[in-house]
Amino acid sequence: MTPEPAAIDITVMDHLLSRLRALGVRHLFGIAGDYNLAVLDRVLLHPGVDWVGTASELGAAYAADAYGRTRGFGALLTTFGVGELSAINGVAGAYAERVPLLHIAVGPTEPSERAKLVVHHTMGDGDFDRFARAHRHVVCADAVLRRDNAVAEIDRVLTTCLRESRPGYLRVPRDVALSPAPPLGPLPDPTEPVDKGDLDAFRTAARARLAAAGTVAVLADFLVDRFGAREELAALLAAGSLPHATLATGKTVVDESAPGFLGVYAGAMSGKRVRSAIDEADLLIRAGVLLADITTGKFTHGFDPTEGIDLGPAVATVDGTAFDVPLAAALTVLTELVGGRPPAAAPVGGPARPRPAAPVRPSAAVPGLLRDSAQALGRRLCPPKFFPLTQSYLWEAVGAAVQPNHTVVSDDGTCLLGIVEQRFPRGARFLAQPFWASIGYALPALLAVQLADPSRRGLLLIGDGAAQPTVQELGTIGRHRLKPIIILVDNDGYTIERVTHGLVAEYNEIARWRWSRVPDALGVDRPLVLTARTPGALDQALARATATTDRLVLIRARTAKIDVPPPFVRLTVNRPDRARWVA
Amino acid sequence: MTPEPAAIDITVMDHLLSRLRALGVRHLFGIAGDYNLAVLDRVLLHPGVDWVGTASELGAAYAADAYGRTRGFGALLTTFGVGELSAINGVAGAYAERVPLLHIAVGPTEPSERAKLVVHHTMGDGDFDRFARAHRHVVCADAVLRRDNAVAEIDRVLTTCLRESRPGYLRVPRDVALSPAPPLGPLPDPTEPVDKGDLDAFRTAARARLAAAGTVAVLADFLVDRFGAREELAALLAAGSLPHATLATGKTVVDESAPGFLGVYAGAMSGKRVRSAIDEADLLIRAGVLLADITTGKFTHGFDPTEGIDLGPAVATVDGTAFDVPLAAALTVLTELVGGRPPAAAPVGGPARPRPAAPVRPSAAVPGLLRDSAQALGRRLCPPKFFPLTQSYLWEAVGAAVQPNHTVVSDDGTCLLGIVEQRFPRGARFLAQPFWASIGYALPALLAVQLADPSRRGLLLIGDGAAQPTVQELGTIGRHRLKPIIILVDNDGYTIERVTHGLVAEYNEIARWRWSRVPDALGVDRPLVLTARTPGALDQALARATATTDRLVLIRARTAKIDVPPPFVRLTVNRPDRARWVA
Repeated sequence: MTPEPAAIDITVMDHLLSRLRALGVRHLFGIAGDYNLAVLDRVLLHPGVDWVGTASELGAAYAADAYGRTRGFGALLTTFGVGELSAINGVAGAYAERVPLLHIAVGPTEPSERAKLVVHHTMGDGDFDRFARAHRHVVCADAVLRRDNAVAEIDRVLTTCLRESRPGYLRVPRDVALSPAPPLGPLPDPTEPVDKGDLDAFRTAARARLAAAGTVAVLADFLVDRFGAREELAALLAAGSLPHATLATGKTVVDESAPGFLGVYAGAMSGKRVRSAIDEADLLIRAGVLLADITTGKFTHGFDPTEGIDLGPAVATVDGTAFDVPLAAALTVLTELVGGRPPAAAPVGGPARPRPAAPVRPSAAVPGLLRDSAQALGRRLCPPKFFPLTQSYLWEAVGAAVQPNHTVVSDDGTCLLGIVEQRFPRGARFLAQPFWASIGYALPALLAVQLADPSRRGLLLIGDGAAQPTVQELGTIGRHRLKPIIILVDNDGYTIERVTHGLVAEYNEIARWRWSRVPDALGVDRPLVLTARTPGALDQALARATATTDRLVLIRARTAKIDVPPPFVRLTVNRPDRARWVA
Repeated sequence: MTPEPAAIDITVMDHLLSRLRALGVRHLFGIAGDYNLAVLDRVLLHPGVDWVGTASELGAAYAADAYGRTRGFGALLTTFGVGELSAINGVAGAYAERVPLLHIAVGPTEPSERAKLVVHHTMGDGDFDRFARAHRHVVCADAVLRRDNAVAEIDRVLTTCLRESRPGYLRVPRDVALSPAPPLGPLPDPTEPVDKGDLDAFRTAARARLAAAGTVAVLADFLVDRFGAREELAALLAAGSLPHATLATGKTVVDESAPGFLGVYAGAMSGKRVRSAIDEADLLIRAGVLLADITTGKFTHGFDPTEGIDLGPAVATVDGTAFDVPLAAALTVLTELVGGRPPAAAPVGGPARPRPAAPVRPSAAVPGLLRDSAQALGRRLCPPKFFPLTQSYLWEAVGAAVQPNHTVVSDDGTCLLGIVEQRFPRGARFLAQPFWASIGYALPALLAVQLADPSRRGLLLIGDGAAQPTVQELGTIGRHRLKPIIILVDNDGYTIERVTHGLVAEYNEIARWRWSRVPDALGVDRPLVLTARTPGALDQALARATATTDRLVLIRARTAKIDVPPPFVRLTVNRPDRARWVA
């Protein structure tokens, strides 16, 4: 009835935990279930890994994903069938957005499986492998651990996850997890050496391409982060004084306070300056880029993706000719080459925006067929407190409130559209899931980033619709006495969908919650809850939130049902066909 | 920007909705997502089907499952990738517990798919079929709808779902859903005719077996309900005055107020009377039975499942000899046969328990290694208000409060163990998911049963741990102004797991919520919230809840962390090995 004594010195589970710890995993997310209880005893006994029980398995998966983005590897542990399937959407998101993590599903014992017992959490037909087969479509490697292959299979799956920067899956019969394991050697190095011939060929081609180019610009994206090439990218940008941008999926992969930073590029959604600098460069160097509908303003990018220099995780191409050179090595080659080029006449991006003492006043309003709040006109005549809060004001003010030690976690929808084009101070980090785009991702992600690095403060941006699917993890955040800032955009439903299709349709409505009371109800200790209905109230709330570091702060920002940030307006104004976001 | 006009008279989606309506579906559960918005316009336009937006896709799947149990068929509609994978655990549960429902996942258009566009909610690799393949392991039929096969494939999947009483899955490109469809004929009849020779052979074998038997008892289970044989079972029980029991999975498949009803059978977890009557019968007739660990007290049933008469969905066996006779037909044969037997000397079950005006006083306490509340001793000395509420008291009192028009929906854990052995009045129905046993199932199930039959009142029994994963659907219940009674067992974590393994382990703890404030925070209008810490307070709360029919009532029942209902004690007392519930 009590946790089992450590009768066995070293078990398969201990090895697995040690491997995860060596990869940076200090927190294992998940939910206890009767098949995994004794296995969780091993987690409690492990000195380097803490158990973080979540309120839903989907929350655990999202948290493991955000943890992987923050610390290089994430992990979750669930129970057979019911638990693992509840988590699978979060695991799939890690596949789509290339986050290395491990999903450990602990199930019935091998004797139960051999006897095909009709045990709970199965289909009753003796087929114990169904859920592993379902996972096979959303992971890069998977295994069923058996006594005679456990350690080798753990290492095969983990190294594949590292090499591909994607999730893996282990089905673990609980008796196998608790069986004795042989001593553990070092984890094989997943990296493959770069061939010098390939490197030289790439250098020659890139040198010629650079020599022929007038203006050169760089577009960077999330794969730079996933394949460990941040420093190499920074070196390239510094060496060449190259104007550069990121996609939304890659926001903060570069220092946004640098003079050459143009902003976030998003095709027709972009601001004019970043759009022309990227679209009109003679040579566009793309580093770790995925061009998706959601990050290119529905494929409205103005450059030819088959031309220029494209650096993928394992392959670099120059005007379509491919070289087996991985991302970091290719960036280093380019750094050598651009060092010899004359510096650009003037930094295209201009100096970094000064950090104002108070939030800046936004300058854009929502025109066209979307509701015009009259704020752009009124702001100069009246104090902002007399006008309703608009999305355009909201995101500039939030952007201005971002501190160097903040990790901004944004959910999908208006939050993401609004925040991506705010320039962050050096040090501030951004985390979102723009491509997989599963609403509700960001709330468990906030839990993970606060645990992963307690020295930073999480700043969550989430809409009322997106906050509902995973709201229970607000309780988990409270349980761990974490003290993030949460900006909840309370606009009565799925606004980004309303402006896409179904402006007044019932299916874009949601249940109206009393958001001011939710943190307390879910057990958060003394939450500071502020409601902002006007620009002035928002400014005050942001200032209080920044100053209040001893507790969780929730700012409930009330905006109109049909109000969206400027990038969406840019994309769709006079182009109603583009309002159809969908493929 | 507004819902599309009905430019096309009849679309594939309209046909699909008409088919579902004909199968009893008046409510379609799910969440809007940009791929499905225009398709949802067709739902809003359909006169017979209402859209029920939930707060999570898992909630939608659980609701569709409970709806299918209540009305014969359920359905949910989600968006591609993120939505459908969030729902898959609920769909898998319908497979395990044999509930017919349809999961409609609406995704990108066929041109997007053919062009392998890198669109959101995909893996970016042009493989649009991954999530359909994942579903294939948890459904009985699936299809990708194309313009030239849509209606035929819809009918194939639906008839398979009906025939197997299991879930099906449709992947629907949104342009296919909105494409014109030919006129619709009748849905093919999924039932297969019974062969007269098989029927005669079964009759002959069963007659001989019945003639040789002294005592005959019947054990009925959920497949009777799923395969439409309730009336045939009732006829058999009436004709033969046969003592009978159900498994937990089949609770209320028979009238529990009938004199021959013994109670719920659960192997060593059962009360003595039902256990001996079932285990010691000369002939045990099993109707629609699945013998699972969770429903047999971990396989402690005392009869030989290869002997006697076993009636499965499609095959009946007599002492192991199989006949191709489906359940309802086999029951009718047995009804003819037992009509000629002499009636039992006395009904073994005794008369139906009288319905007391006030809740009865329970008679069992929690002994052994489990916490003894001293209530059994104290009850006769002091009024119940001076003693803490125990699980043993709780479930007898709740059972006595069940009304004929109640649908009792129970989640897993102590609720399920405690309620199954309470005898319900005629008319009261029970709904739970004992075999798939996914915690959180019951809250969205409550939503579904209240919508499926507004003339009945839902009575939800759920623990604080189980209520966390799907709590957001409490908001959906509030949004629809439903007025169920919710009994929330607030005992600080996973009690059934504590007594299984890890009595004081951290992994059995949960975030402490302020449950009294949760309904209001999630938007429920004027909830009546009552807290019961003593037997007296519980009695009063149950009386008020029954009398208060104009709003949602939440009774927060506080019980000790380590207190479990009598059936668990029966199973485990002096048998600590059995406390290990797990296979």
